[in-house]
Amino acid sequence: MSASIATLTTLCPFFVWNAEFSMLLLWPRFGKDIMRIVKVREIGEFALIQTLKELLCHGNPSSGEMAFPLVIGIGDDAAAWHTTEATELATTDTLVEGVHFRHDFTTWEDLGWKALAVNLSDIAAMGGLPLHALVTLGLQPETDVGDVHALYRGMLSACQEYQCRIVGGDIVRSPVTFITIALMGIATGHALTRYGAQSGDVVAVTGPLGCAAGGLQSLLQGTALDGESGRHLHEAHSHPVPRIQAGNTLVQHGVQTAMDISDGLTADLSRLCANSGVGSVIYADRVPVDAFLKDAFPQDFLQLALNGGEDYELLFAGSEEIISEAVTRLGPSAAIIGRIVANHPGEVKVLDERGAAFPLERHGWDHFGDVSQISYNTFRIRPPNSLLGRIANSRLSFGMA
Amino acid sequence: MSASIATLTTLCPFFVWNAEFSMLLLWPRFGKDIMRIVKVREIGEFALIQTLKELLCHGNPSSGEMAFPLVIGIGDDAAAWHTTEATELATTDTLVEGVHFRHDFTTWEDLGWKALAVNLSDIAAMGGLPLHALVTLGLQPETDVGDVHALYRGMLSACQEYQCRIVGGDIVRSPVTFITIALMGIATGHALTRYGAQSGDVVAVTGPLGCAAGGLQSLLQGTALDGESGRHLHEAHSHPVPRIQAGNTLVQHGVQTAMDISDGLTADLSRLCANSGVGSVIYADRVPVDAFLKDAFPQDFLQLALNGGEDYELLFAGSEEIISEAVTRLGPSAAIIGRIVANHPGEVKVLDERGAAFPLERHGWDHFGDVSQISYNTFRIRPPNSLLGRIANSRLSFGMA
Repeated sequence: MSASIATLTTLCPFFVWNAEFSMLLLWPRFGKDIMRIVKVREIGEFALIQTLKELLCHGNPSSGEMAFPLVIGIGDDAAAWHTTEATELATTDTLVEGVHFRHDFTTWEDLGWKALAVNLSDIAAMGGLPLHALVTLGLQPETDVGDVHALYRGMLSACQEYQCRIVGGDIVRSPVTFITIALMGIATGHALTRYGAQSGDVVAVTGPLGCAAGGLQSLLQGTALDGESGRHLHEAHSHPVPRIQAGNTLVQHGVQTAMDISDGLTADLSRLCANSGVGSVIYADRVPVDAFLKDAFPQDFLQLALNGGEDYELLFAGSEEIISEAVTRLGPSAAIIGRIVANHPGEVKVLDERGAAFPLERHGWDHFGDVSQISYNTFRIRPPNSLLGRIANSRLSFGMA
Repeated sequence: MSASIATLTTLCPFFVWNAEFSMLLLWPRFGKDIMRIVKVREIGEFALIQTLKELLCHGNPSSGEMAFPLVIGIGDDAAAWHTTEATELATTDTLVEGVHFRHDFTTWEDLGWKALAVNLSDIAAMGGLPLHALVTLGLQPETDVGDVHALYRGMLSACQEYQCRIVGGDIVRSPVTFITIALMGIATGHALTRYGAQSGDVVAVTGPLGCAAGGLQSLLQGTALDGESGRHLHEAHSHPVPRIQAGNTLVQHGVQTAMDISDGLTADLSRLCANSGVGSVIYADRVPVDAFLKDAFPQDFLQLALNGGEDYELLFAGSEEIISEAVTRLGPSAAIIGRIVANHPGEVKVLDERGAAFPLERHGWDHFGDVSQISYNTFRIRPPNSLLGRIANSRLSFGMA
């Protein structure tokens, strides 16, 4: 399952801030009549998924009745179930033209790589190895066959790199191009989850953040980003590297809690914290940022690193001893960036090098909604409203007030 | 993998009948330059998938290197691989608004049922049991939350009926509504494939055909179909029943070759025959048709049964002894309807009760193309051309000359 459906487990406390969600809380009493008058854009992605999660909890057959008992269901990067010989994993992610990608920014071959990479990243975030992929393409009839082939070459390139195999799929006519991949894999030990972070734990990431967002921002703004920095940032956006090996390393070192950063550090850490019932503090100056991003965005690099997303580095938490060892093993790009605190579940506070609140200007992505309130030194997932006119055809929304 | 990607294995002999495909055959020599000027609609779904299959054969990592060896890849109803304890299955199918469904014909709850049922049918066609489903929704922001809930109630209803579980998914914004489900399962014994039919074998189906097509036709034509017949046909269209138990029965009786009928008996049998390198003869008067369809379509019921599709009955072949026993066990709706012949791989001849050629008026569904030639007493998959202006928002194309 994707990051988007994976983030709902304990978000209920946030959902009392607008009228639509107040209605949502009354749902069990008034049922379908209220839901019939509420639009998806009015409650946003996260509230929608929360209501679906409740439906699924009640309507799904019991896991105990299944041949292979489910151990991780909705609420993480991938689903996981035990067979007698392995813990198997399955995830799915979709890219839609005009929402997740634009053909003028992304070649078909890069699109193929990226479509598989975002799924591989979900397997990485469980500490797993990928095995088999099903590829569904929604295609416009006017699409060039050569472009479809380039898309597959991109996917096959990722298959070769990470030793997984495309075993089937579906091709359908559609007025908009979309690519949905379902990826199955196995855990290399215990599965990493978004739960279990505890007060006193430290928070770390596997590598530098913000480059993908920097690359996308320069494309959106038409900014000339030539030279090595430009190439590096555009490559980070168009050719993300799933951290399969890093995920395996976390499992080997006994890390239990991890997720991938697809929607931005603050947004994704807020989810991890909400799932674990804890809060967190990030030290902005410890967030790893590479020289290319600083070179291209001398003013904004930290905002991009904190809120950009799509780098697909892993975010993880645990005792200082375990995390320190893992970070050492992961190499110089990995870093401890903050700590878990007991209060304010789901809250992410960002502090600058003097310990003062660091102003957050941007925030993570909601597929249908908006963030109605922005607090300038903390991040929490809020009930969304009406961003749709303002999004810029990407997973990022820039320049929110 | 869906029926659509599953049908290509040995279709090459058919692909020499038009200019586009002649170019396609030269593809290895001229490569990307030729592909760049050919549109998906010009070569059609089957030729497109054939070229992708070649790409995948060369670009996929070797199955021997995988942790779980693949035993059935692209070219069947589902992919299958061996673990030490089971043969696992995975399939995916998509429904796109305006292509596979229309909201004025299908309620959201029926849509949810159907989206899962078409995937369950692929597992049934492998003789398997379903386990876990990943659900991807592409949603327009103006969609009512109540409708999304109804969609999930429909899926959960199928989950309860067939003991599978929704374990994750993805929800994305999209200008067109689509539902992609990836379904994983296990084989109950050997996996049923689309291969292995031999000259002298008989051909059978698990139940009556044509009702779903009759229901859809009445909806498309605005024909009043009231009373019990109307309800039955509309129900067959909107609430198809995957034949999980029947698939298991086939495995228990030693049947090896089977597929589900999603695109119409003649089109799907043509694929099964092409995959097995054989031809076939169907006796029109032996094709099971129920009284409701005869009542509503006294003239056309046989055309609907032969070419309609979407009933999701199983089509299977094998020695007369094995198939007769299986048909007896399946009950009075199942029937032997024809035989396999050695010549004309992929060809389906239909004979009437006097042994004369039965005129075929309609044919199966191609997602992008058209059938440029119709032969009136045989059916073979042909290189498609330009149907798009004529399709009627369904998997069926009626009234082709």
